[in-house]
Amino acid sequence: MLALKLAVRNVWRWVGMVHSRADASEMDAADELARFRDQFHRPEPGLVYLDGNSLGMLPAAAVARAHEVIVAQWGQRLIRSWDEGWLDLPGQVGDRLGTALLGAAPGQVLVSDSTTVNLYKLAAAALDARADRSVIVTSAGEFPTDRYVLAGLAAARGLELRQVAGGPEPLTAAALESHVDDDTAVVVLSHVDYRSAAIADLAGITALAHRHGALMLWDLSHSAGALPVGLDAAGVDLAVGCSYKYLNGGPGAPAYLYVRRAHQGLLRQPIWGWFGQREQFTMGPVYDPEPDVGQFQAGTPPIVGLSIVDVGVALLAEAGVPRLRAKALALGSLLVDLYEEWLVPLGFRLASPRDAAARGSHVALAHPDGRLLRDRLVARAQVVPDFRMPDQLRFGLAPLTTSFTDVWDAMDRLRRLAEPAH
Amino acid sequence: MLALKLAVRNVWRWVGMVHSRADASEMDAADELARFRDQFHRPEPGLVYLDGNSLGMLPAAAVARAHEVIVAQWGQRLIRSWDEGWLDLPGQVGDRLGTALLGAAPGQVLVSDSTTVNLYKLAAAALDARADRSVIVTSAGEFPTDRYVLAGLAAARGLELRQVAGGPEPLTAAALESHVDDDTAVVVLSHVDYRSAAIADLAGITALAHRHGALMLWDLSHSAGALPVGLDAAGVDLAVGCSYKYLNGGPGAPAYLYVRRAHQGLLRQPIWGWFGQREQFTMGPVYDPEPDVGQFQAGTPPIVGLSIVDVGVALLAEAGVPRLRAKALALGSLLVDLYEEWLVPLGFRLASPRDAAARGSHVALAHPDGRLLRDRLVARAQVVPDFRMPDQLRFGLAPLTTSFTDVWDAMDRLRRLAEPAH
Repeated sequence: MLALKLAVRNVWRWVGMVHSRADASEMDAADELARFRDQFHRPEPGLVYLDGNSLGMLPAAAVARAHEVIVAQWGQRLIRSWDEGWLDLPGQVGDRLGTALLGAAPGQVLVSDSTTVNLYKLAAAALDARADRSVIVTSAGEFPTDRYVLAGLAAARGLELRQVAGGPEPLTAAALESHVDDDTAVVVLSHVDYRSAAIADLAGITALAHRHGALMLWDLSHSAGALPVGLDAAGVDLAVGCSYKYLNGGPGAPAYLYVRRAHQGLLRQPIWGWFGQREQFTMGPVYDPEPDVGQFQAGTPPIVGLSIVDVGVALLAEAGVPRLRAKALALGSLLVDLYEEWLVPLGFRLASPRDAAARGSHVALAHPDGRLLRDRLVARAQVVPDFRMPDQLRFGLAPLTTSFTDVWDAMDRLRRLAEPAH
Repeated sequence: MLALKLAVRNVWRWVGMVHSRADASEMDAADELARFRDQFHRPEPGLVYLDGNSLGMLPAAAVARAHEVIVAQWGQRLIRSWDEGWLDLPGQVGDRLGTALLGAAPGQVLVSDSTTVNLYKLAAAALDARADRSVIVTSAGEFPTDRYVLAGLAAARGLELRQVAGGPEPLTAAALESHVDDDTAVVVLSHVDYRSAAIADLAGITALAHRHGALMLWDLSHSAGALPVGLDAAGVDLAVGCSYKYLNGGPGAPAYLYVRRAHQGLLRQPIWGWFGQREQFTMGPVYDPEPDVGQFQAGTPPIVGLSIVDVGVALLAEAGVPRLRAKALALGSLLVDLYEEWLVPLGFRLASPRDAAARGSHVALAHPDGRLLRDRLVARAQVVPDFRMPDQLRFGLAPLTTSFTDVWDAMDRLRRLAEPAH
């Protein structure tokens, strides 16, 4: 363990010393997590995939697991599989995810539905629990589906949706202080901003919400699997997140939700479905919800998708959050170093925090020709970043699948594309 | 086509003449749909699977399709696949399903979320559109998740949930006449009852709701893929259904919803998600929903699940509703004939309509030892039916995968188990 820590620290220390592609290769050779790259399906040779924060790569084991679930469980055992493990999956995968990556003790996390639907369920539950209050606080820079869901809930209930100005700087309790008050029912924010990657002060803002008697709901879509979250320790009430980014769950994979144990049985979600029912198969006349997190299930869980999420979560759990974070920091620092050396002169601007500790696992670079450059990177240079309006190239650094040479190559190809000669 | 019709009619005419297993085999030999059995994965030899109305069997082509989506689309093309077909899938599979099996012209059906979540979205939209009314009408015998969802909506809005007594007889407009009035916002019913298989009068009840200015929402989970539905022709407003039964979409497969074209742009669902947003990737500040059925999407669609549903729907579409229904009728009639000959003397009671025309594609048989007999059928006789409280064995006859010898064998093994000697 000590050797491991040293190795990580060494990689980290080398970052400032990378002056060539060979140096980047050396970092890959010393990278404790490099072996995980072999556990993912490799796309076409030469492709530099830096969009793992939007759709994570395919774990090789997911192919076999999906096949097993489809052929051996569904095809062979058919309906009997519900009693042979399927019914337990949402909580089982949730517990694995919660304990390994979210800092959540078992019995508080479920994998279910989409992030949008989970956010709706939890935000509505929070509003019901604070029915005498009239304000929802979020950020104007919040991910669209979160803002839209909250706008819908506010409109339906005649509440105020208070949107704090969002920028590239990390959200702090101090910045929110004047926006959260004793009429605030719930504060809903992303732990890591989907554009800038700025890390909000999860513990501090949670404490601020609590000082005013409000509930705190975090969206972890851009943080889980890439950096420590610590839900239990921070006293977080509610959280949601998607599993198709750093968790490598696949396109449209089922999302997750967290309900702090202390709230279970007290909060009640609005979609009263049969999978949230106690004694579900008695099919009784009256809705009598599970007393635990199971109540937050709604319909029949998507078994194939859930099983694939399990595979991705298992890989991240094996790597462990400290190593994931250490590598993400190193990758990000290398990218920012190269940006400063090569891209600043070409008109790029860092749209993420400069301080690595304040940044999640992606880096946003703005450029007036951002969209064009992104399209050319994909079409001509075999580099796949993401693009976010109006002018940002977003480079996702997934610690299990991104290498230091990936970062070198991406920045190198980008500067060539952006040079005036082009 | 004429030959085909004759063949179906012939099978149908033979039913009363089946006096041996050999006769049943002859019917299989004459069955126009028998060839479809080879297009499904076969579980262990000897298994008689009569639970396809709970979890349909695995289409062999689904294995290859899932592999293609997982490896070639996700694994190879990664994020680029969203623009290479994924974004269109919910509507595309919905259109295929709608036109082939629901009697719905394109642009009205989406495959998304679970049945529970879809029912919540559509029922809430209907209630918002009739905000001056205070009653939801459903049946006390309605499938649990439907009743629970409606109870939740009624509780949240202070509405009356009026539950008409449900029995094994088909629901008619006449029976509902005294329960639906001008204060009724929406009527929510299953087209085919999940226990008795009684077919409700879809057109008549829809017309009744409309006479009172109410909206009509049908749950098609037990009818789509097994009998004609005819949503457009009957003037149905809204519908939902699951895809893991007769549609062979797999465990927890994404469900579907139907919104009549005339209502699109007027009805608005409560979960304002980014996949329902016009110009979704502009990620603008204000929720501005799609003017069409696309608005009823919420979060990111589950691509692997959607693709598998597509495979199942394609098989049913190829068979065609008339042939599916003709075979389902023949299978059901054989089962009821054998029940009358063998099982009535052993204390069984038909818990489905006696009239084949009034019955969907499953048959429920009640017996005081129903649960025990079901368990023994599974454990000792390789027959898998379903069980529904308190005493019903439910035999699902999926026209693509159930054979006449399956029906013969199931009834034959059941009578042996139920005979006093046992």
